[in-house]
Amino acid sequence: MHLTSLLALIPAVAASCFHNTPLARRVTVPSYGYTATQGPLNWYGLDPSTNVACATGTHQSPIVIGSSEISKVNNSTVTLYIPTVSDLEFENLGTTIEVPLTNGTLVVGNNTYTLAQFHFHTPSEHRIDEEHFPMEAHFVFSDEDGSIAVVGFLIDLTSTKDHSTPLLNTIFEDVNEIAEPGSTTELGLLDFSSVSRHFMNNDIYTYSGSLTTPPCTEGVSWYVSGLPLVLDVDTYNQVKKVLRFNSRYTQNVLGQEDLLQLAADELNGVVV
Amino acid sequence: MHLTSLLALIPAVAASCFHNTPLARRVTVPSYGYTATQGPLNWYGLDPSTNVACATGTHQSPIVIGSSEISKVNNSTVTLYIPTVSDLEFENLGTTIEVPLTNGTLVVGNNTYTLAQFHFHTPSEHRIDEEHFPMEAHFVFSDEDGSIAVVGFLIDLTSTKDHSTPLLNTIFEDVNEIAEPGSTTELGLLDFSSVSRHFMNNDIYTYSGSLTTPPCTEGVSWYVSGLPLVLDVDTYNQVKKVLRFNSRYTQNVLGQEDLLQLAADELNGVVV
Repeated sequence: MHLTSLLALIPAVAASCFHNTPLARRVTVPSYGYTATQGPLNWYGLDPSTNVACATGTHQSPIVIGSSEISKVNNSTVTLYIPTVSDLEFENLGTTIEVPLTNGTLVVGNNTYTLAQFHFHTPSEHRIDEEHFPMEAHFVFSDEDGSIAVVGFLIDLTSTKDHSTPLLNTIFEDVNEIAEPGSTTELGLLDFSSVSRHFMNNDIYTYSGSLTTPPCTEGVSWYVSGLPLVLDVDTYNQVKKVLRFNSRYTQNVLGQEDLLQLAADELNGVVV
Repeated sequence: MHLTSLLALIPAVAASCFHNTPLARRVTVPSYGYTATQGPLNWYGLDPSTNVACATGTHQSPIVIGSSEISKVNNSTVTLYIPTVSDLEFENLGTTIEVPLTNGTLVVGNNTYTLAQFHFHTPSEHRIDEEHFPMEAHFVFSDEDGSIAVVGFLIDLTSTKDHSTPLLNTIFEDVNEIAEPGSTTELGLLDFSSVSRHFMNNDIYTYSGSLTTPPCTEGVSWYVSGLPLVLDVDTYNQVKKVLRFNSRYTQNVLGQEDLLQLAADELNGVVV
């Protein structure tokens, strides 16, 4: 997940009426990427002062979730609510495809978070018991103190749309229109209720991690659904043609030395 | 791809008659993996003297294949031939699922290579123009001088078995039987002719890279088919439950500094 669009919500809403016209808003494409020196192993090198946590953090995301090791939330303490909405923008930021959306709340115990955006990664960033998934959705929230919480859904594949999560079918219906980084399109009616129930009625893994994109800021409260959503393979193929690859490698075990720091220590002959 | 089973082909053949009995051969499971300190960022650290190329090599695999940058082979100079065969072993090595098979040749120009094994990765290791694929197959060959060549097929997904590459349907028919690392099963009749034609009749990207697993030895001649094979989504889901995740991150641009060496230089304040 990333911070970029937490800072740029108002222009997104203001420009939506220019959809598919020569005046269509162009979103800003970040400078980092997922290949060679633009990729995750060099995010620190792209901006050492800002991105230091990307190479030295000990509570970085994503992780491999061991189902018997990572804590689960008491489901009775969690409420995810996102109102039904239409005409939202769907943006290709180059690094992800994202929907700015400020209507929605996540309440966990005494903490109330407000939704900022949701976006997608392919393949999944988190793994559960080593298994990866073809895609992952991140719903990014912040509270009034600026603390960030992310609700993550892994996404598995099925043969037909009949078995897909209906919300995903609607979101990805016109994904071909945002094939180009910087482009936007408009979404149909999005009903989040079944996905909210899916989240609240199944296991929820929780841990304190980080943004999975620069600046890899830590202190992010992760809530990852233990049961994947489902997408049909034809739609997945279309989405993959647009997203191509935007998954950070899994990080060190929580609390242990960052894997890049460890590699540097070893290459410099430091006994670790 | 990996070297392990190049060294252990004879026991595999000798023990196949014990399939699915208490005497079934158990294959040796390597010590490296794909998570945290067992994973690719620490392969050097697991055995610095043997695996030095994993952290310092400048011609490492996999890479992102830029379709206009990486060379293509003149197809008229390539012959891939693997005879039809049955009763082969299919092994779960922990790090991959693999078929030892010594009948088969790859001829490229004046070079003749003999097949040693083929195995699978999920998600794909190579990307083409940034796009990844759900799976990748590696056919590993060596010539009489010990030089290694690998034929790589990316694998895309389809909704039904009717559209799958028939060879893949046969190979993965009983993949559930090798869910446990160290276990083996026996394959049905494998006809490689259509896959050989697929390889010889489409673009073939070629570059000099490395093994994608420890010891990451360089000097490997890669031949990657530009057109993916196809697998149905239900079979893919079964294979993914077994393989879980075994894909090395893409490496530096060929000839440039290794990304781990670069990260180490940056973290130690070396001007690069």
